[in-house]
Amino acid sequence: MKDPLKTLRDTRPLIHHITNWVTIYDCANITRAFGALPVMAHAPEECADMTGISSALVLNIGTLTTGLIDCMIISATAANRKGIPVVLDAVGVGATKFRDDMAAKILNSVRVDIIKGNYSEVAKLAGEHAQTKGVEATSIAADPRQVARTLAGSRSCTVVMTGKEDIISDGKRTFVVRNGHDQMGSIVGTGCMAASIIASFAAVNSDHCDAAKDALCYFGVAGELAAGKSGGPGSFKMHLYDEVYHLSDEKVEPMMDFE
Amino acid sequence: MKDPLKTLRDTRPLIHHITNWVTIYDCANITRAFGALPVMAHAPEECADMTGISSALVLNIGTLTTGLIDCMIISATAANRKGIPVVLDAVGVGATKFRDDMAAKILNSVRVDIIKGNYSEVAKLAGEHAQTKGVEATSIAADPRQVARTLAGSRSCTVVMTGKEDIISDGKRTFVVRNGHDQMGSIVGTGCMAASIIASFAAVNSDHCDAAKDALCYFGVAGELAAGKSGGPGSFKMHLYDEVYHLSDEKVEPMMDFE
Amino acid sequence: MKDPLKTLRDTRPLIHHITNWVTIYDCANITRAFGALPVMAHAPEECADMTGISSALVLNIGTLTTGLIDCMIISATAANRKGIPVVLDAVGVGATKFRDDMAAKILNSVRVDIIKGNYSEVAKLAGEHAQTKGVEATSIAADPRQVARTLAGSRSCTVVMTGKEDIISDGKRTFVVRNGHDQMGSIVGTGCMAASIIASFAAVNSDHCDAAKDALCYFGVAGELAAGKSGGPGSFKMHLYDEVYHLSDEKVEPMMDFE
Repeated sequence: MKDPLKTLRDTRPLIHHITNWVTIYDCANITRAFGALPVMAHAPEECADMTGISSALVLNIGTLTTGLIDCMIISATAANRKGIPVVLDAVGVGATKFRDDMAAKILNSVRVDIIKGNYSEVAKLAGEHAQTKGVEATSIAADPRQVARTLAGSRSCTVVMTGKEDIISDGKRTFVVRNGHDQMGSIVGTGCMAASIIASFAAVNSDHCDAAKDALCYFGVAGELAAGKSGGPGSFKMHLYDEVYHLSDEKVEPMMDFE
Repeated sequence: MKDPLKTLRDTRPLIHHITNWVTIYDCANITRAFGALPVMAHAPEECADMTGISSALVLNIGTLTTGLIDCMIISATAANRKGIPVVLDAVGVGATKFRDDMAAKILNSVRVDIIKGNYSEVAKLAGEHAQTKGVEATSIAADPRQVARTLAGSRSCTVVMTGKEDIISDGKRTFVVRNGHDQMGSIVGTGCMAASIIASFAAVNSDHCDAAKDALCYFGVAGELAAGKSGGPGSFKMHLYDEVYHLSDEKVEPMMDFE
Repeated sequence: MKDPLKTLRDTRPLIHHITNWVTIYDCANITRAFGALPVMAHAPEECADMTGISSALVLNIGTLTTGLIDCMIISATAANRKGIPVVLDAVGVGATKFRDDMAAKILNSVRVDIIKGNYSEVAKLAGEHAQTKGVEATSIAADPRQVARTLAGSRSCTVVMTGKEDIISDGKRTFVVRNGHDQMGSIVGTGCMAASIIASFAAVNSDHCDAAKDALCYFGVAGELAAGKSGGPGSFKMHLYDEVYHLSDEKVEPMMDFE
């Protein structure tokens, strides 16, 4: 897509989140800084209605409960019916059996358009042997590009693995994004934010693989710019928001492979 | 009231919040930066007791559930009995029927002293045709000053509509506050913070219309000062807290109409 | 322990939190800034498993519900079995009977290795007459060092009382830490962060009294450094994270009494 950020900012899509209590504010705030409108709503009585007026849905299982999972399935069903993209951020899959089971429950109950996680989370979803240290990736034996490609192919969706290199695949095309900066790992929440940004770009671009690639390039570039001005994680986070806000399509130089 | 900020800081009232999970930290932190003491408590077993030692109560339905609404009614009943102000921040009313119904349930179960929302939220509460895009105001057909005045008169309370112009009315007096800066809309949570600040000023000023007007003038001035020093939403938020902390009654120049 | 910060950063222990919704992000972020890995998980179906892969457990009752208390007891039981330290942050004890009862329920159901609170919270736990203003300490009649020492002795644990002077006692040894800065009280959450930091140091040091003393010295020094660069609570918080990130064992000069 040409000028994806301008398109996003001109459209201002509403992005419905059912997410975790740790990074809920940052998911909302980064969505707004990119130019979309966040809304967080998790009451079973209203979540389908809220999805019904939205343009994308983010499901993040960072602090999941069975009640939240039920709401996620209600909202994703509404999203599927409306034809808007559903992003699953598989936070902590590979850390406990409950997370593995609940992620599987979502994937088997509704259509997820974009599965996103770190290397060990996605590898675990793909049936590989992988362990997540809480919500932190550990190294995996399998080739991550192959994992992403295979899972995307078998689920007919887009798969995003975030890490030092971000891998995005729809089973046919695979992008490897190298934008970003180590400082992004020094604060909590950049992974969750990435899912919100991916959903925002996917809300205005029906090619979800392209949207996810754009989202990670743009976020990565903002991270690079912020890191250059920062003296630690506190100032990095402040600059990250400022840089996202001032991003423009011209400013982004993707560092990317395509396979 | 003369020197409302000094009065607030000398009194340090405890402000009990039952609020949403997105901006809960910012509601607490801005309450403290203004000089009051925040407490957040939403267990049904203790919420009446916590209200009982507090000087104002904030009800914010941003991420409402039926369980939270029950607690809000328990706490508001305790607040009514004690005679301390109850502020309802009607976040997202006009977006889903559930929010409309739950806000109505609160308003019909307890006495709310200050109803606060953006233009479309308050218009919807007033029975006007209005739609809220998630938690974002959309334009309304009716005259906002008339909406505020009429709702305040019919409910015998103070009504606050926040937006480019903030409108405060108790049905007889109507203030239009023009302090503030567009940057306040670039971050998530300034609307929720405003409710906490209004509750803080109302805790020490029994003229709630006057208290709400003061709260929005003071917050708006801090926003103007912060915007002058900021390079985007990240630095704006940092400066906003610094400026609130250093506000004084002498520093505030209200930009205001009175009708 | 020699070089406790280097030890913590080399080990990167996973710190499981069951905590409140106000400061949950800051607890996670400060844990990471110090070099440990935070994880927040409160579903009863997974909390024991999450504790099972962790190296310390933080229980913070800031926004407690009966459901959360049940999870805390499940996780603490798992922690006791595994032999990893359990930290209880007794937020708001002395404000409502429900908090007093729930804190007592935890203490009577599982082994808590480190009890932490402000002066009035800990005094209340120790059976003294004390009232907490929401989550804010009020002055206590009893001698705080004696309170800490007695409670630690009777519970065979480490007791930490935070305030202008931090008091740490295991019933035999008592440390009084004077590092820190008034600005730490200008933002919400430094008390909760302290519990996360104490748990992080205790995860790598079986002498919990020593670990808690180190945690508060290091956090206090970061607070002093940040305050010297800050213009208010917004910039203070930013600098606090930067300073924590750049702390080193050489940089810390404890201001401390030992009894």
